[in-house]
Amino acid sequence: MIITLNSPLDMHLHLRDDEMLKVVAPLSAKTFAGGIIMPNLVPPVTTLKALKEYKQRILDTIDDENFDPLMTLFFKNDYSYEFLKEAKEYIGAIKLYPSGITTNSQGGVSSLDIASLKETFEAMSELEIPLCVHGETNGFVMDREAEFGDVYESFATHFPKLKIIMEHITTKHSVSLLEKYDNLYATITLHHLYITLDDVAGGMLNPHLFCKPIAKRPEDKEALLKAALSAHPKVMFGSDSAPHPTHKKECCGCAAGVFTAPIALQALTQLFEEHNALDNLQAFVSDNAQRIYNYKPLEKKVTLEKISYLVPQTYSNITPMFASEELKWSVKSVL
Amino acid sequence: MIITLNSPLDMHLHLRDDEMLKVVAPLSAKTFAGGIIMPNLVPPVTTLKALKEYKQRILDTIDDENFDPLMTLFFKNDYSYEFLKEAKEYIGAIKLYPSGITTNSQGGVSSLDIASLKETFEAMSELEIPLCVHGETNGFVMDREAEFGDVYESFATHFPKLKIIMEHITTKHSVSLLEKYDNLYATITLHHLYITLDDVAGGMLNPHLFCKPIAKRPEDKEALLKAALSAHPKVMFGSDSAPHPTHKKECCGCAAGVFTAPIALQALTQLFEEHNALDNLQAFVSDNAQRIYNYKPLEKKVTLEKISYLVPQTYSNITPMFASEELKWSVKSVL
Repeated sequence: MIITLNSPLDMHLHLRDDEMLKVVAPLSAKTFAGGIIMPNLVPPVTTLKALKEYKQRILDTIDDENFDPLMTLFFKNDYSYEFLKEAKEYIGAIKLYPSGITTNSQGGVSSLDIASLKETFEAMSELEIPLCVHGETNGFVMDREAEFGDVYESFATHFPKLKIIMEHITTKHSVSLLEKYDNLYATITLHHLYITLDDVAGGMLNPHLFCKPIAKRPEDKEALLKAALSAHPKVMFGSDSAPHPTHKKECCGCAAGVFTAPIALQALTQLFEEHNALDNLQAFVSDNAQRIYNYKPLEKKVTLEKISYLVPQTYSNITPMFASEELKWSVKSVL
Repeated sequence: MIITLNSPLDMHLHLRDDEMLKVVAPLSAKTFAGGIIMPNLVPPVTTLKALKEYKQRILDTIDDENFDPLMTLFFKNDYSYEFLKEAKEYIGAIKLYPSGITTNSQGGVSSLDIASLKETFEAMSELEIPLCVHGETNGFVMDREAEFGDVYESFATHFPKLKIIMEHITTKHSVSLLEKYDNLYATITLHHLYITLDDVAGGMLNPHLFCKPIAKRPEDKEALLKAALSAHPKVMFGSDSAPHPTHKKECCGCAAGVFTAPIALQALTQLFEEHNALDNLQAFVSDNAQRIYNYKPLEKKVTLEKISYLVPQTYSNITPMFASEELKWSVKSVL
């Protein structure tokens, strides 16, 4: 049994920098045709010079006919129209982080007040630059995303022409917002389709499944599954694959993030097959993203076969999701 | 500023066995006059022979005029009336674990069906042996205790003369059950008065605060605080101090339990002082337990002084709560 995916895209990807970049970028390039590259480096990517240099460092680690890194700027509310007009040629989107909400987000926006964002959001609307958002408040960990719902609703209402992508959604409530506002879209990760808080802290504590936003309740996972498996037209796959060295995960005070890029397609295929939804996988992992981003990807045919695949214990010094476990599908060829 | 506590009691304590016992028993004996000793050894304590031998091993590590270990049996529904009548002389209570719910609970009851428990519960009612319960289902981690509420209500209704102690309660709902049934009581830990899930998984993941039941929501903590700080007459302090070697906490798949015994009185005094409730501390840490258990403890006067106390990084190979942090109160003398 085989399935061929055309130009799979990972619409939310952390490639990091330096040695980590050299390990993880080739792993994404192996099976994905491209993806949205997150800008939360230290310091964050806020200038075109930094962005072009980062893109070059990415391309230096891979064959550039093989993977197209769609770059993003780290949102600042002082980006001018002229700057954004020039930037548009080089970026896929701009990513907004509320300050201090996740890894390397210290320089994010400290106020989500509409007035302070208006000028930049209006410029982005006119220039058709999508806004990607890490939507969490500083509230109680299980409520952070739901509490941010008001912000999404306010953004969507005030800027109806701005394409707003709710990144890595984890709740039933976020799924419901997709129906409510034409200009709200979403990415969903692999791990949030597989796990709930039970997998992080229900048995033994599992640091490798600890991420932000944290995995939520069973009914939330069900809502995400329903949206993904039906290839809801406003939903795209975005792994949020976020590598940290194993020693920073298995320690007292571990970092947030699940590393899924190299096993994402195998695990997604397994999941979609289990739910008799293989027909919708192409839309979830590529077609929806192409339409939403108005983007034509590199051509790449990834064929998966139903032969069990033993996930490595580590990739270099990074522990992936499903480490040392068997998945039911493996990558047969990439053309 | 000083405060003297008479015969502080820890009504839910894990002393473990072997080398661990030798480390932790003297630490509890230092500041507590006694406590309820949990029976979840490997294998669990289910015979009087095992119970007496375990008690002797505890006493061998401490000065027996200094600390009275109130022993418990691990609940089995085949304990006969005659056995329980003999056991009563040696035990403070019997502890019921649903099977597989926490550390070393594999041999716990697999059915909570009233019919299967009736004979033992009726014998315990007649013999006035309290029943301590780890009240969690196998459900979603944040719902387990609330889901168990029905079991508590059923037990309380069917066995009105059985004294039922809801151990280490963590939810607003459990607090509300205290008002609803005369024969329901509760212990509350130190850590559940200090933390919510945010402290475990809201920032970085903190394995040293990972415990079962897991810390819940802010409104749950508020309800627990209200009950403890007011020294609700049906509520007792029980640390659930549960030591694990540091390497079993700071690892992939860490064990559940917070080690608080040696710093419990200092931290409780700090908490009660912060909330202007020092007058209620004696009832919470001793008087309520004496009345509920109909128990006269060893005489012991523990005086604490408002002088800052630096909590050690470790006790032997065990990391305590507040490791390397300063508490505002220290133990001045024990007489």
